[in-house]
Amino acid sequence: MQIAVIGVGLIGGSVGLAARERLTAAVTGYDPDGGALRQALERGAIDSAAASPEAAAAGADAVFVAAPVGVLAHVVGAALRGASEDAVVTDVGSTKRAVVAAVEDPRFIGGHPLAGAETAGVANARADLFEGATWYLTPTSRTEGVRYERLHRLLTALGARPRAIDAEGHDRVLATVSHLPHVLANVLVSQAAGALGGETLPATGPSFRDATRVAGAPTRMWTDIYTANADALGSALEETIDRLRRLRDELRDPGAVARWNDEARDDRRRLLEADLAGGEVIELRVPVPNRPGVVAEVALALGRASVNIVDMGLHPAADGASGTIALWVAGEEAAQAAERMVSELGHPVVRNS
Amino acid sequence: MQIAVIGVGLIGGSVGLAARERLTAAVTGYDPDGGALRQALERGAIDSAAASPEAAAAGADAVFVAAPVGVLAHVVGAALRGASEDAVVTDVGSTKRAVVAAVEDPRFIGGHPLAGAETAGVANARADLFEGATWYLTPTSRTEGVRYERLHRLLTALGARPRAIDAEGHDRVLATVSHLPHVLANVLVSQAAGALGGETLPATGPSFRDATRVAGAPTRMWTDIYTANADALGSALEETIDRLRRLRDELRDPGAVARWNDEARDDRRRLLEADLAGGEVIELRVPVPNRPGVVAEVALALGRASVNIVDMGLHPAADGASGTIALWVAGEEAAQAAERMVSELGHPVVRNS
Repeated sequence: MQIAVIGVGLIGGSVGLAARERLTAAVTGYDPDGGALRQALERGAIDSAAASPEAAAAGADAVFVAAPVGVLAHVVGAALRGASEDAVVTDVGSTKRAVVAAVEDPRFIGGHPLAGAETAGVANARADLFEGATWYLTPTSRTEGVRYERLHRLLTALGARPRAIDAEGHDRVLATVSHLPHVLANVLVSQAAGALGGETLPATGPSFRDATRVAGAPTRMWTDIYTANADALGSALEETIDRLRRLRDELRDPGAVARWNDEARDDRRRLLEADLAGGEVIELRVPVPNRPGVVAEVALALGRASVNIVDMGLHPAADGASGTIALWVAGEEAAQAAERMVSELGHPVVRNS
Repeated sequence: MQIAVIGVGLIGGSVGLAARERLTAAVTGYDPDGGALRQALERGAIDSAAASPEAAAAGADAVFVAAPVGVLAHVVGAALRGASEDAVVTDVGSTKRAVVAAVEDPRFIGGHPLAGAETAGVANARADLFEGATWYLTPTSRTEGVRYERLHRLLTALGARPRAIDAEGHDRVLATVSHLPHVLANVLVSQAAGALGGETLPATGPSFRDATRVAGAPTRMWTDIYTANADALGSALEETIDRLRRLRDELRDPGAVARWNDEARDDRRRLLEADLAGGEVIELRVPVPNRPGVVAEVALALGRASVNIVDMGLHPAADGASGTIALWVAGEEAAQAAERMVSELGHPVVRNS
């Protein structure tokens, strides 16, 4: 297998290391920063260096574009120009609507691994960076099932847990679970600095340090993210403001404050309950018409239902007009949820036992 | 030395353990929960159990009231009724204005150790819980220097770093560095639960988990804290709302977003710069008139200047009308700041080298 990595920082470098180590893939890299490219070669994150995104993509089965959010559509375009007809091209950007809207090529499927924001650079790349990490994919109605399947398998082989989500849902969720915590961390440190008026922070309990650990994250990267997701983040901020205003108005009512705190405790428990429930892996087979978008539709439905697809396979029928999606899910509960969701889409489901 | 601990949970129990272990003090305990009191005896956090707050306080040199914020003034009152004329009575409540305003007795000095919010109960008490922890004291103009000095020395012996602050400043600072992070953690989990609509949290990076670790903290304790500090917390919430609103309005301006993020990075660095600077311990001597409030005045001034008082001593002059405060501070920078602050109060300072 041949893999291209365009942008060999932490994420791109880790894709290269994992692909070489786990899949014995041949990895070609490109980076506008010649020093980073040399370092990636030295670290063994790539086998060979290309002179342009187009050249890196040429001949690759899969192309990973790990460029800053601000130039993503541009670099993905270059990769698509260089890539072969049956390549799959994906990216790893933290916001998805812009790039998914800008790129119409059916070879492209947007992606976003939730891994490794703390450090940067190929020096910190690791072959196991994606082990167990959610890797969002944002297929659309244009997405061809066979390409989606190939990418899903590839990411699973890199150790990740792919989860399909529409680009809009992705940006809304990330605004809340990632961008908003960063904003609140920034606000907290600046407000505390003001309140302390030049004093250093007293040796507090861990609540302040934990809550502000990500304050002042790398400015260039985060300015790109905040502005690229300005509308979804803006809505999330509106909601936060509303919630804070409601609490402020109830602060003198112990009953209301207690209820509010209990709700947060319940919400937290529900959110963090590991969906690692696991259990026996069950295979489901879904006969589908062979049309673009049908795999995306199924994957998105299961993503919405929080069903983790352990593995998937596509089996075209001899007539070329239909095929079967094989889905492996872990545990009886996930299997039943998957059956329900797929049935609701109008497809038959059979268990392969 | 005899110590009384009224309320033998995590904090009270740890005071008992530390006082017995480090000072070989005799510790008498009281708790309205008989089971907790028995457990404190079994754990060796107290030597003997008393039948009431008054009985526990009788004969003690120092009394620690570790009762819930909502009943603090009431229990401190009972302790003062039982305590001898030259006892010092303090509390460990998380908000200070209410109790300091309610209790006029000069034997009382409000306090608040910043330690151990994560677990509860005497089962989790530890003799080293206060090691290196900031322990706020809120002396007033009524506070007698000799009592303040005794309490300061006692807390230092328990391993803590006492820092004087006025009750209002305490509640304002805590609203921002402790209560607000708890509120934001609650808001974040509830908002994320809404955004994810029943899905479990994707395996995100650490930002969300870190930011929400304290979400849904024990409801009874925190309802007391939020409502007792409702006005200061309300102001802090106002400020947070303003800051979020300003950011929302600037989200499409990359220059403004970058400046905002850079400021947060600088604020964070400044806040967390360890004031453990340390260096040689320097002794300063401050001749003062022997009147109530003068030690509090000096301690508060140094607290405001973030000067950590490693140790302090009070030496009354033979005439009874004046005395000397000896202050030990760590490092040249702290010494110079202390000299400046004390001079501004109109007192002479001499270095004792």
